[in-house]
Amino acid sequence: MPEFNAPLRDMRFVLHEVFEAPALWARLPALAGQVDADTADAILEEAAKVTGQLLAPLNRSGDEEGAQWEAGNVSTPRGFKSAYDTYIQGGWVGLSGNPEFGGLGMPKMLAVQFEEMLYAANSSFALYSALTSGACLAIDAHASEALKNTFLPPMYEGRWAGSMCLTEAHSGTDLGLIRTRAEPRADGSFSISGSKMFITGGEQDLTENIIHLVLAKLPDAPAGPRGISLFLVPKIQVNADGSLGASNAVSCGSIEHKMGIKASATCVMNFDGACGWLIGEPNKGLAAMFTMMNYERLSIGIQGIGSAETSYQNARTYARERLQSRAPTGAVAIDKVADPIIVHPDVRRMLLSMKAMTEGGRAFASFVGQQLDLAKFSTDAHEQQTASELVALLTPVAKAFFTDTGFDSCVLGQQVFGGHGYIREWGQEQWVRDVRIAQIYEGTNGIQALDLLGRKVIANRGVALRLFTSQIRAFAAEPGKPYAGELLNAVQRLEDVSDWLQGQARLNPNEIGAASVEYLHLFGYVAYAWLWARMADVAQDSLNADPDFYRAKLATAQFYFSRLLPRTLSLEQSIRAGSESLYGLETASF
Amino acid sequence: MPEFNAPLRDMRFVLHEVFEAPALWARLPALAGQVDADTADAILEEAAKVTGQLLAPLNRSGDEEGAQWEAGNVSTPRGFKSAYDTYIQGGWVGLSGNPEFGGLGMPKMLAVQFEEMLYAANSSFALYSALTSGACLAIDAHASEALKNTFLPPMYEGRWAGSMCLTEAHSGTDLGLIRTRAEPRADGSFSISGSKMFITGGEQDLTENIIHLVLAKLPDAPAGPRGISLFLVPKIQVNADGSLGASNAVSCGSIEHKMGIKASATCVMNFDGACGWLIGEPNKGLAAMFTMMNYERLSIGIQGIGSAETSYQNARTYARERLQSRAPTGAVAIDKVADPIIVHPDVRRMLLSMKAMTEGGRAFASFVGQQLDLAKFSTDAHEQQTASELVALLTPVAKAFFTDTGFDSCVLGQQVFGGHGYIREWGQEQWVRDVRIAQIYEGTNGIQALDLLGRKVIANRGVALRLFTSQIRAFAAEPGKPYAGELLNAVQRLEDVSDWLQGQARLNPNEIGAASVEYLHLFGYVAYAWLWARMADVAQDSLNADPDFYRAKLATAQFYFSRLLPRTLSLEQSIRAGSESLYGLETASF
Repeated sequence: MPEFNAPLRDMRFVLHEVFEAPALWARLPALAGQVDADTADAILEEAAKVTGQLLAPLNRSGDEEGAQWEAGNVSTPRGFKSAYDTYIQGGWVGLSGNPEFGGLGMPKMLAVQFEEMLYAANSSFALYSALTSGACLAIDAHASEALKNTFLPPMYEGRWAGSMCLTEAHSGTDLGLIRTRAEPRADGSFSISGSKMFITGGEQDLTENIIHLVLAKLPDAPAGPRGISLFLVPKIQVNADGSLGASNAVSCGSIEHKMGIKASATCVMNFDGACGWLIGEPNKGLAAMFTMMNYERLSIGIQGIGSAETSYQNARTYARERLQSRAPTGAVAIDKVADPIIVHPDVRRMLLSMKAMTEGGRAFASFVGQQLDLAKFSTDAHEQQTASELVALLTPVAKAFFTDTGFDSCVLGQQVFGGHGYIREWGQEQWVRDVRIAQIYEGTNGIQALDLLGRKVIANRGVALRLFTSQIRAFAAEPGKPYAGELLNAVQRLEDVSDWLQGQARLNPNEIGAASVEYLHLFGYVAYAWLWARMADVAQDSLNADPDFYRAKLATAQFYFSRLLPRTLSLEQSIRAGSESLYGLETASF
Repeated sequence: MPEFNAPLRDMRFVLHEVFEAPALWARLPALAGQVDADTADAILEEAAKVTGQLLAPLNRSGDEEGAQWEAGNVSTPRGFKSAYDTYIQGGWVGLSGNPEFGGLGMPKMLAVQFEEMLYAANSSFALYSALTSGACLAIDAHASEALKNTFLPPMYEGRWAGSMCLTEAHSGTDLGLIRTRAEPRADGSFSISGSKMFITGGEQDLTENIIHLVLAKLPDAPAGPRGISLFLVPKIQVNADGSLGASNAVSCGSIEHKMGIKASATCVMNFDGACGWLIGEPNKGLAAMFTMMNYERLSIGIQGIGSAETSYQNARTYARERLQSRAPTGAVAIDKVADPIIVHPDVRRMLLSMKAMTEGGRAFASFVGQQLDLAKFSTDAHEQQTASELVALLTPVAKAFFTDTGFDSCVLGQQVFGGHGYIREWGQEQWVRDVRIAQIYEGTNGIQALDLLGRKVIANRGVALRLFTSQIRAFAAEPGKPYAGELLNAVQRLEDVSDWLQGQARLNPNEIGAASVEYLHLFGYVAYAWLWARMADVAQDSLNADPDFYRAKLATAQFYFSRLLPRTLSLEQSIRAGSESLYGLETASF
């Protein structure tokens, strides 16, 4: 039976030691006095209990039972409702929410650690609350005071949930094609009609109400993405005093049968003249929805890290216990019939690959969290602006690189088990099935890569990129930093490739999409190199304080630089091959 | 609903044009007069019908229903029994079997194309017959005339099936640990006792009898792998006249619940003093079993290619039909609301990656098939010997590289569908789940890599490797060959890395396992480069005969060389990093 124990020591290492979060919190007025190292540790310890003891034990039974649909109602698997009730009592849904409406106002740097635990314990369960937290963010940023006052408090509480209604059968990536309509009514509300699909948590039995954020078109809307508006559509209408009123014309037509995250209800949602309320400006709905989408993109990225962490923990345990063959250099467990498989170099390679990528991802997520906190709380306009630009640049990398490499890690974590990894009994195969969706939903990783290269690098003329790489260069230029040479080579490679692509894109627009996925991976490996160098730097300085712990960080950094970073070589060469070979084949000849 | 249409034109291209199989058959006495181009084409067309029309339609229902166990009996999903009866009437189980005992004696080069279709249509179904074909091979090579006469004819017919009983709960890779015992009886038979697990087709309702090939230890056996013997243990005992006798003491204790290949019964098999017959010499069972295992390794490799082929076919169809967004260079389908997604460079990258790897794999499998035919049928001792050495070298590459890259292809084929790839409806997710096992069973891909590098390259001092690379060098040295320069660079890289590893392994035995998986991938990419150059060479020469077809081959070769072969750069650098970084981390610190 798989277990999950939150990697608290590693999280504190990243939070307190690598990023010195408590010092940052102390200098930001909105956070000073609200959170310090002790508060943060107490929250993380509580989060470890909730996720490890309450949610992880429901992960496998949730997969086996799945969410069930009957006559428009969805029931979550046994134990989910009771666990959810306990869970929301902890205030977790509003952990980093706006305190004005009942959120706890905690920094995102802390929330990303919590989200990792949540996905690591039970990804299906995590989604129900991740959608609510993201919907709150969009409501808080774009809705009227009246809507905020009515909807945010019960949502932060977790009594009401949120959903994100974008996709329609014929309109996924291309949201300009949506057909859902919004007709204005005399009372200022709108009548919403249309059908949405792939709606996570569109219906469930956990909460009293579900607040759908729905993209729809007004009667006079321009065609395409510039004609999309955002509406708040409650499952049950809400009276002026906040109490629940009549049912809204919203129904769940069916749920999907999927490869994984089976305990998460993925719904077809029908809106038949449902009452909705405009959020933000007419025809500016996509921008407002992006507030939620950017939140979810980072969150789904973290699903990749959390899944890989649990798969790693189980693979490590198995590799220490499973006896099979002798070490190449001679027997280690002489009193046993064979050695534990962790002695074998290839098993170590698999485990170290998982470990290096998961810990690198955790550091990267924490860095993005730090920038989100600076963008939200900094009182220095320049710092605030820089942080916002970095968040925009790094969000697609976090979403896609965490999940591509998180999937690879879960596949490795299954491979360590041999045949035992393929059967349900040990749970490793579930992580592969569950995490696979993270490369697809919330904007496929191909779309993330286009966003990164096309919009955030090339359309931005490399300005944000230089903000990022200059931080890496500044670190490497300090005296005595580990891996400074390797890091400078890596960042030079990224900058050179970026500049080259800037030129290529002018000649042929296909060059962006031809390079984008490999470019995002190149970017990710270079970013992780920086983070591993930073972690090694701290570990070196602290070595005597906890030799085993810090030596492990140094060894993992060494592995990352010598065995994983070389992947950038191939990525560069494939990118520089350009788009030509993608168009040599006629469409009919595929 | 996914479909499978056998790629007959591509198979004929490889068979007739690239490898000129009919000319080879004509000069081998055992095949001349038995098979020519027309016979081969007729067989392939019939195979396409059987697999596409009879077996592919049972693929999804088989997954949904799964094999079921009840009170020791296993039932296959609805339709399997009737399909199996039709299937064996075609003689497919004995397609390349020994004609002396009822096999059809067809060349392996033809059989590999058939096997690809079988796995591409329905991998679970394929396994029931793949195990039988492999068991026949071991019986034919190592059993007594009496056993051959009794067992081979009904097995080639498919009336009786075969199984391969190696693994025990505590003994997977490390077969020296098996505990199953064989006690000699007065009548020359043996009493077999023990429990085996992960036995594919150990029990089913398709055949009258199941012939288990079981590894067990004789009372006086030496410890470890040199004390293993091989036994033939029928589910139902067989009378002297070949008729079925009493039940044997063999029972199926349970079947596994797995990630995929759910219609294939994966059994716990209990032998409680079952009557068995020794195959080959006492204590030489592992070598005899390897006759079957090598057959299955190539076969399972081909599962990787077949799965990727079907996933590709469906992704291609979807990419031509799904309308979403406009081409970067401007609208293509002006009369539609959006362009088919096949216009987007990243979708083309995914499809071309699948296509290049699947067709490269098909050519590689055909080359191995050719060498197997030469090893079996050649009358030239030198040619025969060379072919045997190449088969030994290339079998682990085929098994692991086809399945690692086949898995990647199925993941890409799922990604092309976006969210629709994750739900059951379109079938793409099943291919990912089904093919995943191919990287694990039949010797994990890590074990294949150790076999390749440790045994077939280093212990062999590179002799077989040079036999292979000298063929590549000879091709590239001929005037006017396409990609000659790239190919020479690639083969030089493989040879240099091999020589370097030869030296490293002398210094530290861990170096083999530290490099092995990446080495196998390096080997695979270099081998595919040769095969793509050969295919491009033929395509260039034939261009006018069928311009669309051959241009597609040239374009895919170009894609392979410019976008995929560069992966060898990173692989080399990771390999040369050596084992040191794998052992910097203490076991307790993982």
